[in-house]
Parts: sequence; structure tokens; C-alpha cells
Amino acid sequence: MSEPLFHARQTVEQVEEGTELAPKFDAQGVIPVVTTDYETGELLMHAYMNEEALRRTIETGEAHYWSRSRRVLWHKGATSGLVQSIVDMRVDDDQDCVWLRVRVGGSGASCHVGYRSCFYRSVPIGDAAGGPLLFRESEKTFDPKAVYGDAPNPTKL
Amino acid sequence: MSEPLFHARQTVEQVEEGTELAPKFDAQGVIPVVTTDYETGELLMHAYMNEEALRRTIETGEAHYWSRSRRVLWHKGATSGLVQSIVDMRVDDDQDCVWLRVRVGGSGASCHVGYRSCFYRSVPIGDAAGGPLLFRESEKTFDPKAVYGDAPNPTKL
Repeated sequence: MSEPLFHARQTVEQVEEGTELAPKFDAQGVIPVVTTDYETGELLMHAYMNEEALRRTIETGEAHYWSRSRRVLWHKGATSGLVQSIVDMRVDDDQDCVWLRVRVGGSGASCHVGYRSCFYRSVPIGDAAGGPLLFRESEKTFDPKAVYGDAPNPTKL
Repeated sequence: MSEPLFHARQTVEQVEEGTELAPKFDAQGVIPVVTTDYETGELLMHAYMNEEALRRTIETGEAHYWSRSRRVLWHKGATSGLVQSIVDMRVDDDQDCVWLRVRVGGSGASCHVGYRSCFYRSVPIGDAAGGPLLFRESEKTFDPKAVYGDAPNPTKL
């Protein structure tokens, strides 16, 4: 590729109304990423990319993330087979967030707990506020122990 | 409400598999929020809530955010009329991200630039990597100057 992938952020108009990709990485060097299922629109996961992960994602068309807990570049699906192939990639108005619309390989799951989506519980609101979370998926799509073995759980308290 | 809205984070199992809302706010005291259109699944915006914004959102059923640039609690739509009424609210596996599925009032827009979604441009990938961003919305749904007047633009370089 002779064109540079990332451009310097010079003006608000360039960032909001232009056609140059000028992503803003935060103080930790990452940009948040929202990943949804291309067919259903379901939110699958929310993660982060550093510059290298964003570059590899753009060049390969497969989602790469930066694991903040493990501090490694993470080609999603490299362990589990659940590769996320990007159908459409978007950037937001101020270019500090990326949206991936993907087709997921294998069983179609994206959550390390074993559910299809990471967002498998609803939070009661309004009159029901304070009530228990409601599970929206009734069963797991895979057994995390079989897939990940003894790898440390990424959830931190 | 006699039940507490937020619970202490005690174990990974409680956080991932339990029915208690135990959100994780980051070092800046905020949690990222993904907001999608309930009908179309379209990603409208990515923003943040502090504890008060999350509490008000749960209690009122309308999206409240924490504006990191303006450092104020932000009842979305208070200025523009584009209130986001929550149909379903989700939390992810490790409870460090919130998903709002909303119906938007007024013109249905959610982006301060005037587009329906903040994610109005696609990023070329694969063989097309490095090419210009592609606009996916052809016209604005409102005139930001008429709605926001001289309020400072939230986009930071």
C-alpha cells in the first residue's frame, strides 16, 4: 500500500466531514471498538485496538484487538476458531471509536463465557430498577474450559 | 427503591454468571456505553456514563451520559429534543460496558454533526485499505447550528 493508512488530525472539519482516516487513540494508546453481527445487528462485544491492531484489521479484513488485560495483540478467533470477518467497518464523527459489522466463524459465538453475545443479560429499568439481571440467552454455544483450557479468565474485579 | 442499584464486585462468577448489577467504572470513573436503534440495530453512538448517569438512566429509562469533554451530566436530547427512550438495557460479561437499545425522539438523529448515526463513514479494508472514507448517509437530518447555536463543538483534536 503506498497510501498511508492513518492521517494526522488537523482540523475539526477534516475529522468530522473529511474522507481521511485520522483515528484518535487515547492516553493508553487504544481506541474503543464496537462489534455487531452483520446479519442480526446484535451487539457481540466491546473491545479496544491499539494502532497495530487497527492496521492489521484494515489490511486483513479480520478483527484484531488489543487485549488490555493480557497486554497482547489478539487476532480474535486464533484460539477458538471464532474468527470475525468484517463486512463493513465504520468510524464515528470525531474518529475516536470504530464499529465493526462482522460475520463470525465456527459456532458464531463471540463471548469468552460461552454465550453468543457478551451482552447476555438485561438490566431492569424504570419501575423495575434494582431487580435482578435477566438472562437473554438460555444456553452456552461452547464449553469455555474445552476451548480455552487453563488460560486465565480475562474478567478482572 | 429499597434495593441497592449497584452491588460490590466480589467474584468472577458473581460478575459473569450472576443476577446482580455490579458495574466496573474505570480509573476516570466512567463506563463505556454502546447505543443502538432498537428497530434497525444501527449503531447510533458510543459514549460514557459515570455512576450518576447510570443511576439516572436506570431510574428514568432515558439515556443519560457523562460528557467527558464538557464534564457535565448529559440528559441526551435535553437540548436537541432527540431523547433516547430505552427499550432494552444490557450489561456485558465482565460488567464494564453497557448496551442501550433505544427509540430516538424527534427526527431520530443521534449525532451532533447532524447525521442519524455518528458512524456515517465506512473505512475501506483489505485490497481497498488506505482509500478514502465512504459516506453512508447522504444528507443531514438537522442543522447543527440551528440546534446547538454557538455551543462548543465536542470534537477534540
